[in-house]
Amino acid sequence: MTDVSGLSIGILGGTGDQGKGLAVRFAQAGHRVLIGSRSPERARQAAAEIGHGAAGAGNAEVAAEADIVIVAVPYDGHKALLESLREPLAGKIVVDCVNPLGFDKQGAYALPVEEGSAAQQAAAVLPDSRVVAAFHHVSAVLLMDPAVEKVDLDVLVLGDDREATDLVQALAAQIPGVRGVYGGRLRNAFQVEALTANLISINRRYKAHAGLRVTDV
Amino acid sequence: MTDVSGLSIGILGGTGDQGKGLAVRFAQAGHRVLIGSRSPERARQAAAEIGHGAAGAGNAEVAAEADIVIVAVPYDGHKALLESLREPLAGKIVVDCVNPLGFDKQGAYALPVEEGSAAQQAAAVLPDSRVVAAFHHVSAVLLMDPAVEKVDLDVLVLGDDREATDLVQALAAQIPGVRGVYGGRLRNAFQVEALTANLISINRRYKAHAGLRVTDV
Repeated sequence: MTDVSGLSIGILGGTGDQGKGLAVRFAQAGHRVLIGSRSPERARQAAAEIGHGAAGAGNAEVAAEADIVIVAVPYDGHKALLESLREPLAGKIVVDCVNPLGFDKQGAYALPVEEGSAAQQAAAVLPDSRVVAAFHHVSAVLLMDPAVEKVDLDVLVLGDDREATDLVQALAAQIPGVRGVYGGRLRNAFQVEALTANLISINRRYKAHAGLRVTDV
Repeated sequence: MTDVSGLSIGILGGTGDQGKGLAVRFAQAGHRVLIGSRSPERARQAAAEIGHGAAGAGNAEVAAEADIVIVAVPYDGHKALLESLREPLAGKIVVDCVNPLGFDKQGAYALPVEEGSAAQQAAAVLPDSRVVAAFHHVSAVLLMDPAVEKVDLDVLVLGDDREATDLVQALAAQIPGVRGVYGGRLRNAFQVEALTANLISINRRYKAHAGLRVTDV
């Protein structure tokens, strides 16, 4: 498996639940974690809560400084933020975990994305970055719960750059209990993002924090 | 769990791999299985191979006779077939397991569906039926392999009719090893169908017959 030790991890939108949950687990695994936010002050507050040497800064600074950058911002604003960070993100592995979802009285549903998926949108606006899609289904609640020693799910990792997907699979495996499983090319990212709506339906029906495991792998 | 014993199961497109694999398992579980095909002769041949009392007939006859009808035809022709069976399928639970996929040198990819998904297409052309989406990810190879005593996966069952989804969940559980897990409303069927493309990518990469299990449920 690719050696990811020593890599610093930046998390854009690291003050949201999903970003913060991932930040906690990567910081605990010994990575230098840089929390990014529109507000450097809020980023520093979140980093202080996370501890383990995590630091906070504005999104642009984090994009420039981190070895790998995870995008965990709300879908609304996703495209504009990445467009503004094209230069600092050039040459880097950018891991998109954004789920374009809408919500109404009947629950969650998938939003259409002009580029095909949030990950393909990222790839379109970041032509010089190596975009990988991953971490869509990880429950923020479980990530942030210190009582959960092992997170019982597989992270599907999608992308067109084998070296990059291998690395992100290894990164996923830094979270105790998690496997990173290759899940296909970026053109098949929409359904992985959208499936989060189904997991939300499952969570409601079964009062669960559902995840997925891939069998026979 | 809903009692499904004694229900006869019709399978439109029951001479294809997916339909035949399901037919074998339901026949083994004691259900009367009716294999449907455009060609009644091919349907009878498939039924003879399956044994366990399975019978074969034309699609229209099977649609009229069976208690529950599973749609396992190729996506190409799906809409036209169901339109032609609106009357015999009225009032029945219709289980759509069709995956609208395209294939090229890079593997499988999801096809857009005007109605949103194959299952929603079925619901649109069968307004008097109770359409449920299920069995998308079940490996035909594993279903048809008599050496596979237990099939290691969960079947996601989607629909807007609670009684119907409960029944199909119980039907899924007739296959040894399988659980039927509620997976959301029909409007979230597209991504479940499309995810079959990702499972095909996983199968190629890992030389596997991948399935999904839902954790914490």
